[in-house]
Amino acid sequence: MLSGGLDSSTCLALARRLGFDCFALSFDYGQRHRFELDAAARIAAHFGAARHMVAKIGLDAFGGSALTADIAVPKSRSTAEMGQGVPITYVPARNTIFLSFALAWAEVLESSDIFIGVNALDYSGYPDCRPEYIEAYERMANLATRAGVEGITRLKIHTPLLQLSKAGIVKLARELEVPFALTHSCYDPGPDGAPCGECDACLLRRKGFEEAGIEDR
Amino acid sequence: MLSGGLDSSTCLALARRLGFDCFALSFDYGQRHRFELDAAARIAAHFGAARHMVAKIGLDAFGGSALTADIAVPKSRSTAEMGQGVPITYVPARNTIFLSFALAWAEVLESSDIFIGVNALDYSGYPDCRPEYIEAYERMANLATRAGVEGITRLKIHTPLLQLSKAGIVKLARELEVPFALTHSCYDPGPDGAPCGECDACLLRRKGFEEAGIEDR
Repeated sequence: MLSGGLDSSTCLALARRLGFDCFALSFDYGQRHRFELDAAARIAAHFGAARHMVAKIGLDAFGGSALTADIAVPKSRSTAEMGQGVPITYVPARNTIFLSFALAWAEVLESSDIFIGVNALDYSGYPDCRPEYIEAYERMANLATRAGVEGITRLKIHTPLLQLSKAGIVKLARELEVPFALTHSCYDPGPDGAPCGECDACLLRRKGFEEAGIEDR
Repeated sequence: MLSGGLDSSTCLALARRLGFDCFALSFDYGQRHRFELDAAARIAAHFGAARHMVAKIGLDAFGGSALTADIAVPKSRSTAEMGQGVPITYVPARNTIFLSFALAWAEVLESSDIFIGVNALDYSGYPDCRPEYIEAYERMANLATRAGVEGITRLKIHTPLLQLSKAGIVKLARELEVPFALTHSCYDPGPDGAPCGECDACLLRRKGFEEAGIEDR
């Protein structure tokens, strides 16, 4: 699963390094901007994904999030503020929906491995980035599919970034030669795609690079 | 969740009878025909759903099923044949995807109840209609959402038809005054929407009415 942000790009780089053939899946879910999808396409091409699919799903119909509805994206919050409660940028059941599409595609491809770049440390309070959630999802997924009934394969949801700090992810990304300049993290970019520098995603990214002592190009 | 078939229509009728305000959710998922969605709209209106949403999701992009791809729908199979393995009309991870959208909408509506008309007896071998699957899904869903983190509500997935035979569903439907003529079950209807009479869905429906001793109008 590839959003085009730093985390999912690092995840793809790692899966490639581990020798997997990668089928990259992005979502056009009514997000406020398209820069993320452009970044995903660049990253998929850079790492030689066997295919890059953009699934179109109308999450905006449900509303309820600053990432899909006409609600202001919070700016300049401290990491303490980010750590309190579920933020307004949380999209209801987003990872559950995304993983379900990945599960469908994996079943058609007869793949037994899904990689998702969720992170439980700097996760900004998203419920669907927690380890217990991922474990429950994997258990459900193995009961959901043809392979589950026929006992052919056991599906594994790989979360290599789950316990890494943002600085740890930045270091891993450099190790894997992720082209930082091709990735996109900002929730609320300018009309030219330039990051705002003040949303949670920008602030977490900056903090990660600073703590890793690496320059973000 | 309302497909417009007999099972989901009966499920909606029951939820209404139990006093729930109902928000009906259907899916335009690249199925081969639109009669099902028309039936869902009629049934939602008939039972006074507070709202009927049709979520558009491109499952056909994944392929792999006779219900979405250009693969022939099997005809005139015996119930013994239907009971063997996962049929080609199985859509990969379909219920998982559908439930995930229901979960997202439930979260936005602050609803704690999802009704789904799955059935484990006459389920034609679909893995995602089994009780252990539904239980695993509910467990995952309660870890996935804002309510799960904040401990506000516990989500319940209601499966009132799970252990009923098709004849039992037909009897329940009559009890709840489901207008049979407004529902649509066939996988492969003619150009005017008339049921083919030979696909698994038609055969199971006919068997159910016959065993219940009720006429299907």
